Amino acid sequence: MADLQVLDDAAVLIGDDGDIAAVGSYAELVGQAGDATVTEVDGVLFPGFVDCHTHAVFGMARLADQERRARGEGYKEIAAAGGGILSSVRDVRQRSADDLTDLTRRRLTHLVANGTTTVEVKSGYGLELEAELKQLDVIATVAADGGPSIVATFLGAHEVPEEYRPRADEYVNVVINDMLPAVERQGVARFCDVFCEPGVFTVEQSRRVLEAAARHGLAPKLHADELDPSGGAELAVELGAASADHLAAVSEAGIAALAGSDTVAVLLPGTMMFLGRGNQAPGRRLLDAGAAVALATDFNPGSSPGMSLPLMTTLATSQCGMVPAETITAITVNGAAAVGEAHTRGQIAPGFRADLALALVHDWREVVYWYGTGLIAEVWVGGLACHPRQTPVNFLV
Amino acid sequence: MADLQVLDDAAVLIGDDGDIAAVGSYAELVGQAGDATVTEVDGVLFPGFVDCHTHAVFGMARLADQERRARGEGYKEIAAAGGGILSSVRDVRQRSADDLTDLTRRRLTHLVANGTTTVEVKSGYGLELEAELKQLDVIATVAADGGPSIVATFLGAHEVPEEYRPRADEYVNVVINDMLPAVERQGVARFCDVFCEPGVFTVEQSRRVLEAAARHGLAPKLHADELDPSGGAELAVELGAASADHLAAVSEAGIAALAGSDTVAVLLPGTMMFLGRGNQAPGRRLLDAGAAVALATDFNPGSSPGMSLPLMTTLATSQCGMVPAETITAITVNGAAAVGEAHTRGQIAPGFRADLALALVHDWREVVYWYGTGLIAEVWVGGLACHPRQTPVNFLV
Repeated sequence: MADLQVLDDAAVLIGDDGDIAAVGSYAELVGQAGDATVTEVDGVLFPGFVDCHTHAVFGMARLADQERRARGEGYKEIAAAGGGILSSVRDVRQRSADDLTDLTRRRLTHLVANGTTTVEVKSGYGLELEAELKQLDVIATVAADGGPSIVATFLGAHEVPEEYRPRADEYVNVVINDMLPAVERQGVARFCDVFCEPGVFTVEQSRRVLEAAARHGLAPKLHADELDPSGGAELAVELGAASADHLAAVSEAGIAALAGSDTVAVLLPGTMMFLGRGNQAPGRRLLDAGAAVALATDFNPGSSPGMSLPLMTTLATSQCGMVPAETITAITVNGAAAVGEAHTRGQIAPGFRADLALALVHDWREVVYWYGTGLIAEVWVGGLACHPRQTPVNFLV
Repeated sequence: MADLQVLDDAAVLIGDDGDIAAVGSYAELVGQAGDATVTEVDGVLFPGFVDCHTHAVFGMARLADQERRARGEGYKEIAAAGGGILSSVRDVRQRSADDLTDLTRRRLTHLVANGTTTVEVKSGYGLELEAELKQLDVIATVAADGGPSIVATFLGAHEVPEEYRPRADEYVNVVINDMLPAVERQGVARFCDVFCEPGVFTVEQSRRVLEAAARHGLAPKLHADELDPSGGAELAVELGAASADHLAAVSEAGIAALAGSDTVAVLLPGTMMFLGRGNQAPGRRLLDAGAAVALATDFNPGSSPGMSLPLMTTLATSQCGMVPAETITAITVNGAAAVGEAHTRGQIAPGFRADLALALVHDWREVVYWYGTGLIAEVWVGGLACHPRQTPVNFLV
């Protein structure tokens, strides 16, 4: 992961299909370009970043939760005050798909402005058939915009909804018997994810959901070992999941399991930062053991309203023991692997999608180093230029 | 600090002198505006942010140090490998003032793009008369550009230079006898700061420098209690310093001293984040005791290459127990107090400079909440609009 190939005076030849046709020296490729339009850029051209874990479809910002957390209130106090994840669920259930689509588009503009060209987006604020399908429809609508590539994940088992507490097993049955068949029928998701954590869904419940999902054509992902080591990473590996995500509390056995697998360990350092927790995921130990590590924003209204993958590289370097080159691999090649696009996204190479991010820097390491500010000046998706800096679409709530 | 005044449908009337003439309802002020140019904006208008602690004049980025730190190397190993603060000193000593001016201007563009309109800038990478004056001259040149307001601080006692080790007392004599008179003569600094920390300058050495500085017309500031509680905060209060900065290791006695004083406690949460340290300054305890708290970026090439005050508000909320309103006061009113501009900067009020930052959000709290991305769409300095988003001046090294 620390072995990046960096080319000087390079050029990328993009085909009419929006894929990369060739990569090489400028002098060499300009001769092959025929009557192609030539765009000269000065800076460092990265593969468009892949944000492989977001919950980008939601309604309100949870501003009050942030303040309560700053005052020292915990998860349960915030929920008792009407906040927490279930407040997002109540909000998403009553919002129109149009409203959610508009908000999601605005927010994705920020991800793109920070260099992201492929975004995994999960449902999981519906927790009932209709509202989950509404979220997945919003994802499909946004995916059809022609902006960043969107990978849809069904996360009906994100939390036990209020009306099923404390009957989590019954809710799991609803997910398996009602939701999964409908999601398959509508063809609106590629992955299925579960929040596997003591107090949410057990390893056994998570296994049941993901095994059923596989029968409905959805590949597994797993929220694993965020707060407590419950065997989530091991389950993800057992099921051949594309990724095991969070991992701040992963056990040694979990690290060993990931190291011996193709399951990508997805770390979300912005979440631990935003929540004010001291324990970041053990990036260095995962890497040293041989695991493939990716980084993502976890963009969501409760624990990570952050939209910059470059900032995640800084956090991972500062707090997870990853060297800068590893963090770039983590938001490109390995992010792509975590969403099943290892052969189409995350590299500047022939046959890959022409998704590119231009940073106005001399040295690629600067994207990891200067933090909290915008270094990405231009983004291309499928060869087409966006101009994220010239269209400040904010008003995010 | 948590009591912000938020106006709806408001207007700001700016005089020809670049100061704010009136603030009130739009309906009321538009009648008083005479033939003034009317600029309508939609969003939340903040006082331009005040970054009251930066080391913005430096040459190279310390990219290799960041990687070494990620590999687990400590301060001493990094210095032994040719990095650390003394590598910035070697670099600044040999660079031309023109080169440093160009780099500083580029970097300040990023601070402004994130809403900052007043920046304190320290010397301290010269550590010899000529190079310290060169840095202060660069600060004066940039200050004359008409961009953000610049407050210059002489920090000759930032570190003991190689040629004086281990004779710190002799170097202190040079600072006092050679540098301070020259700085006064040239009129290039308003404050004097010292890095008071075990292994750098003792409390006694710091007191000597700051007492001498006062005789040369420079008001005191102090880097205090960053790594160990050595009585730095208490010294800052004893000397009536404008600010005591860092404070991650401040003692109970230091907190009590600050609480009973007009010395502003300046917290630098980006630094602790970037260095990967677990111990943030005790913002909540300082506030509860009654201290005035400000936040700053500490922008510098070694421990904080971060240029966004909004990100510092997020970090302070997540990691220092400050509520969002307190963090806004900390980057406006209290930042201004920390640089001696409590009556001219940091508020949208008559008689204050018309320094403004427009965030395209509906609720001011969003600037603390959505993190790592650019929410500031427009900045005015002395009533004149900058367009930071339309001029992506990067190439920071």
